[in-house]
Amino acid sequence: MRQAVHYVVVETRGKGLRDITAPIADWVAMQAMQTALLTIWCRHTSASLTVQENADPTVREDINRFFDALVPEGNGRYVHDDEGLDDMPAHLRSMLTQTQLSVPVADGAMVLGTWQGIYLFEHRKRPHRRELVLHLLGD
Amino acid sequence: MRQAVHYVVVETRGKGLRDITAPIADWVAMQAMQTALLTIWCRHTSASLTVQENADPTVREDINRFFDALVPEGNGRYVHDDEGLDDMPAHLRSMLTQTQLSVPVADGAMVLGTWQGIYLFEHRKRPHRRELVLHLLGD
Amino acid sequence: MRQAVHYVVVETRGKGLRDITAPIADWVAMQAMQTALLTIWCRHTSASLTVQENADPTVREDINRFFDALVPEGNGRYVHDDEGLDDMPAHLRSMLTQTQLSVPVADGAMVLGTWQGIYLFEHRKRPHRRELVLHLLGD
Repeated sequence: MRQAVHYVVVETRGKGLRDITAPIADWVAMQAMQTALLTIWCRHTSASLTVQENADPTVREDINRFFDALVPEGNGRYVHDDEGLDDMPAHLRSMLTQTQLSVPVADGAMVLGTWQGIYLFEHRKRPHRRELVLHLLGD
Repeated sequence: MRQAVHYVVVETRGKGLRDITAPIADWVAMQAMQTALLTIWCRHTSASLTVQENADPTVREDINRFFDALVPEGNGRYVHDDEGLDDMPAHLRSMLTQTQLSVPVADGAMVLGTWQGIYLFEHRKRPHRRELVLHLLGD
Repeated sequence: MRQAVHYVVVETRGKGLRDITAPIADWVAMQAMQTALLTIWCRHTSASLTVQENADPTVREDINRFFDALVPEGNGRYVHDDEGLDDMPAHLRSMLTQTQLSVPVADGAMVLGTWQGIYLFEHRKRPHRRELVLHLLGD
């Protein structure tokens, strides 16, 4: 049994979902473990992780629209507004999704379903550099 | 230290919570590990996992009603509607709950609280076959 | 590779976020593992875990206000009301946040981002004693 840790930087283009499945799967494959547990940690409170359908891109459009309505911006709506009107909604959207995901690895690959992709969900309007930590434990 | 992986199929009866604590606890017990980490992965984006009260069944009724109101169906509400009006709400309900749960095992059993049950949350109207992956790591 | 398990009791003061980063970081440090995976499990369905900004306290005010609006109390709103009007909303707020968090440990410490704190989110109005389980696996 052994462990591996890797830091990944993802450049986002502002609000929305960015598919990060491929670079994560590549790193997992390089570690050459047959059975393991992969943990992904997002080091931010205004971006988060989610598992979503990787087929129809309109799913991501609907997700953006739904979260904009569920956690609206708005002048005067939040006390904490000195980092921008999109900052407090970003924290709330992070809370409602995931900061961490742990995916079992079997036969050398993550056990994702056919239609599952792993996404970084950027909640700020402007592009950001987001740091993820990958931790793999197995053999 | 060793690992075990197991695939479980759960038949759902349409929208709602299905208690999956017993079959998971049985499989964990069969692995005969004293201390471990159990990870449950749901291989779908229109069903998810949650931990909820296992006592009063009206809790599950209220949960169904709350999620139907929070993530409403509706003709014209979503761009992605060619898989049915309940498909896009199913993806959103999955995002707001869990695709993965990791439960510590101590003294040979999951450390669930007295009133905690593990549930598969089906988000589609029709019954589905849902595949879960169980991964156990410990000794 | 070895494991450690620890039970922690957190006294809450009613609804709101309580920073539990320091006691968890202290316990992790005492285990003297360089690389590991820490899992935190909340043994309740009316309190939960979340990762949030640890800087400006007004963030926590806005979080409380947002969740009170998203999951309102209300006479007659829920079928399950015999444990108090704040009980069913507490279950729903738990479902929308986390019962479990797994944080990678590298160089002997959790890989939290600069602004990340780990919080216990109490959903009941009255103070409660909440039990968490910490599980650490690594070397």
